[in-house]
Amino acid sequence: MNLDSYLPFILKKTNIARIERNQLLIGDRRILPWNHEMVPCNTVEEVAQAIRSMVTQGGGPLQVALTFIRLLGQRIFLGEESNSLSVFMHAADTLASARPTNTMMARTIRAVVAEVGRWYTCGGIQGMYDHDFPVFIDEIIDRYEEQFDRDYDAMSEYGESLLSHEEGILTTCFAEHSFILALVKAKARGKEIAVYVPETRPYLQGARLTAPALHELGITTYLITDGMGAHLMQEGVIQRYLTAADTVAMDGTVVNKVGTLANAICCAHYGIPYHAFSLSPDSSLLSGSDIIMEKRDGRELLTCRSQMITLESIPAVYPAFDRVDPDLVTSIITPKGMFPPHKIADEYAIQTKR
Amino acid sequence: MNLDSYLPFILKKTNIARIERNQLLIGDRRILPWNHEMVPCNTVEEVAQAIRSMVTQGGGPLQVALTFIRLLGQRIFLGEESNSLSVFMHAADTLASARPTNTMMARTIRAVVAEVGRWYTCGGIQGMYDHDFPVFIDEIIDRYEEQFDRDYDAMSEYGESLLSHEEGILTTCFAEHSFILALVKAKARGKEIAVYVPETRPYLQGARLTAPALHELGITTYLITDGMGAHLMQEGVIQRYLTAADTVAMDGTVVNKVGTLANAICCAHYGIPYHAFSLSPDSSLLSGSDIIMEKRDGRELLTCRSQMITLESIPAVYPAFDRVDPDLVTSIITPKGMFPPHKIADEYAIQTKR
Repeated sequence: MNLDSYLPFILKKTNIARIERNQLLIGDRRILPWNHEMVPCNTVEEVAQAIRSMVTQGGGPLQVALTFIRLLGQRIFLGEESNSLSVFMHAADTLASARPTNTMMARTIRAVVAEVGRWYTCGGIQGMYDHDFPVFIDEIIDRYEEQFDRDYDAMSEYGESLLSHEEGILTTCFAEHSFILALVKAKARGKEIAVYVPETRPYLQGARLTAPALHELGITTYLITDGMGAHLMQEGVIQRYLTAADTVAMDGTVVNKVGTLANAICCAHYGIPYHAFSLSPDSSLLSGSDIIMEKRDGRELLTCRSQMITLESIPAVYPAFDRVDPDLVTSIITPKGMFPPHKIADEYAIQTKR
Repeated sequence: MNLDSYLPFILKKTNIARIERNQLLIGDRRILPWNHEMVPCNTVEEVAQAIRSMVTQGGGPLQVALTFIRLLGQRIFLGEESNSLSVFMHAADTLASARPTNTMMARTIRAVVAEVGRWYTCGGIQGMYDHDFPVFIDEIIDRYEEQFDRDYDAMSEYGESLLSHEEGILTTCFAEHSFILALVKAKARGKEIAVYVPETRPYLQGARLTAPALHELGITTYLITDGMGAHLMQEGVIQRYLTAADTVAMDGTVVNKVGTLANAICCAHYGIPYHAFSLSPDSSLLSGSDIIMEKRDGRELLTCRSQMITLESIPAVYPAFDRVDPDLVTSIITPKGMFPPHKIADEYAIQTKR
């Protein structure tokens, strides 16, 4: 299955990350929707810095990390990296620490490196020089990517099943593959859906990524400011709130872009269901308090598209993510199905303990 | 009493509006905090257009309208306007219709014109040419301005009495005189207060007006985005929510800048009190549904400080104000005291019926 033809420009795999001339190219989301450029990275440190500085974000770093592992495989085969597992382990650790809150990339990359490690243990150093080594790495990554595509497809089916003709949907930030595919499928099945997209300051992911992506796909889209969600709920315009989840803990706590909590509370106030898409709830996080909440530099708030919005001397705070209490979440949409938050542990924590 | 020395630059009377060389000059809030400029207006139509296009906002139009009435008085005395009450009535109607939601300016300006009308009825056309006419107009306006200053002073006393040492305050937009004076008094009385100011997109009144004004007065201020209020409440940083009210209806409904409702709902969720300052609840509005809710052009959202934040083709909606249900409001701070929303009618509706 290749989902690319159903996805908007921003989510096509080669626009997120690709290898060209022995470099990793990362799609620069900071300059979307006006410019389509790729940022070249040579080292894992450069890749980590690109992630920290928001060249890519949300689910982007996952695809970036997988593509970088492919590049490492090629480089080792060509003798341009030392033939050691530590190259992969260093890459995994460096990328995992780039942004702390979303643990999906870190867990995936470590799982991939563990698979490489098993091969290394069996084949030894000699195997690293084998013609098959980059092929083997590609096969591992292909398998992960194909699984993610199947997962996105399944999650978007669950998501689509929730939607009714003429619903108004509120979202936050950029809710990625499953959210967008659910809307694509709903549209294909004749459901007219209007999506209200908060601009998502300070990086404007809603205004720059979500709204243009939905518009590109012919889905009815309205831009709003980050403070307008409750207004539209009160007016009866919003029937459902759908976001991605950067992380889901085993108690059903959903972590997502700051601004998600306010909308979730307002949904509860107006009796509007809130569903979060999570590719992989994190079984290592027993509760929301175990999640590392990234705090970014408050000075990032003082500008909007590089233009000052207040005096240089004004202090600002920038908590990047919200922790949404389980009792504010109607269901979490995962590849295994849609579950109320308190059932997540049954599906994820217990199975990993077996 | 002259409050000017306690107020920040933006609220000093002559920086809101003043007369120079037979013109009305309006302080241009659109270019604050970087530039301090006045927009000259010759006709009442120009003044109304300046108000519509956000040259001034919030409580600004009230001061602008009063100052324009002074100018009319001078012009009639000089023979530059026809000596008719209709000049005042036309001015009142034109200014009143500039922005529909905040009814305070419209009610005040009509009350002033009614006073002019009584003088006209007694003195007749001849009186209009009298030396005393502009003096008489000035006396009426002086009386109103002095009353407002007494009201701001009283309201800020009530507001200050709510504040405790080391409280964190959330606000929205630019809450004007009483809010700022309450913080000035709290500071003078040794209470250390930190104010968290949402930037208030799209016009950035929080970032451009409130945060610099508080900073100017030495009050601890942190800029946040419009989606961060709930996050800070959850973290225990916010103990109180204080805003202005553009309008208060007799059922206790508070209307204020869009974004106020989401924060008020989140306050209720976390048990945080919400107080709104209202100079004059509107006895002609029996309930929230009687309030005219201004909808502005959605295209105003597509830019931030004149810079595009998304594609030109993206539709947007811009409801300018929120209607906050009375059950979300702890108290309304008026010149007569602080009242729970359901008591507002006792103080305002009944007295006007006597």
